[in-house]
Amino acid sequence: MNCFYNWREHVGVQKEKFYKTTLWQGEHLMLGMNCLEPGQQQQAHAHDGADKFYFVLEGSGRFTVGNEVCEVEAGGIIIAPARIEHGVVNTGLERLSLLVGITPGIK
Amino acid sequence: MNCFYNWREHVGVQKEKFYKTTLWQGEHLMLGMNCLEPGQQQQAHAHDGADKFYFVLEGSGRFTVGNEVCEVEAGGIIIAPARIEHGVVNTGLERLSLLVGITPGIK
Repeated sequence: MNCFYNWREHVGVQKEKFYKTTLWQGEHLMLGMNCLEPGQQQQAHAHDGADKFYFVLEGSGRFTVGNEVCEVEAGGIIIAPARIEHGVVNTGLERLSLLVGITPGIK
Repeated sequence: MNCFYNWREHVGVQKEKFYKTTLWQGEHLMLGMNCLEPGQQQQAHAHDGADKFYFVLEGSGRFTVGNEVCEVEAGGIIIAPARIEHGVVNTGLERLSLLVGITPGIK
């Protein structure tokens, strides 16, 4: 089992829809990455039985969690508790790369 | 409830033992930070019913997960699955700051 990763080796691009990849899936955690090109977005959605976080690796975007909206740059952490609607749009000029954790992971 | 954080606002130093702080505790996730000064370490330990990850925010260190040992720098991700022993020592010359997630969080 590989326990060591570097996010820069897992960046990807997808034109039709933002890019998603899974780094690791365990009993209690799914850790992955989302990469959004400028203008791409993740529509608001909620996870019924799972907490989620995003960590902004590069770029910037406008995140919505419930009624809160915040522009977040690299180094920012966004929490989406279970059942709370959340989404993001890349409002910047660069790729927006996110480390994403969903707990427990969606199987 | 605050859903937006920046890790740079939560760095801390503790001389006797490495610094720990909790950013967020939900039903399924505890997200926090560990900051180790050069030479400081987290002894090998395991979480019985929880997966854990570290994300290296700054600095570098030698991470052990089970029988694997790896020197990891900023941008590295380390996974410690439930029941697998893991630990870290700051082998660098700078502070080692880690984003840490434990799922489900330890209450």
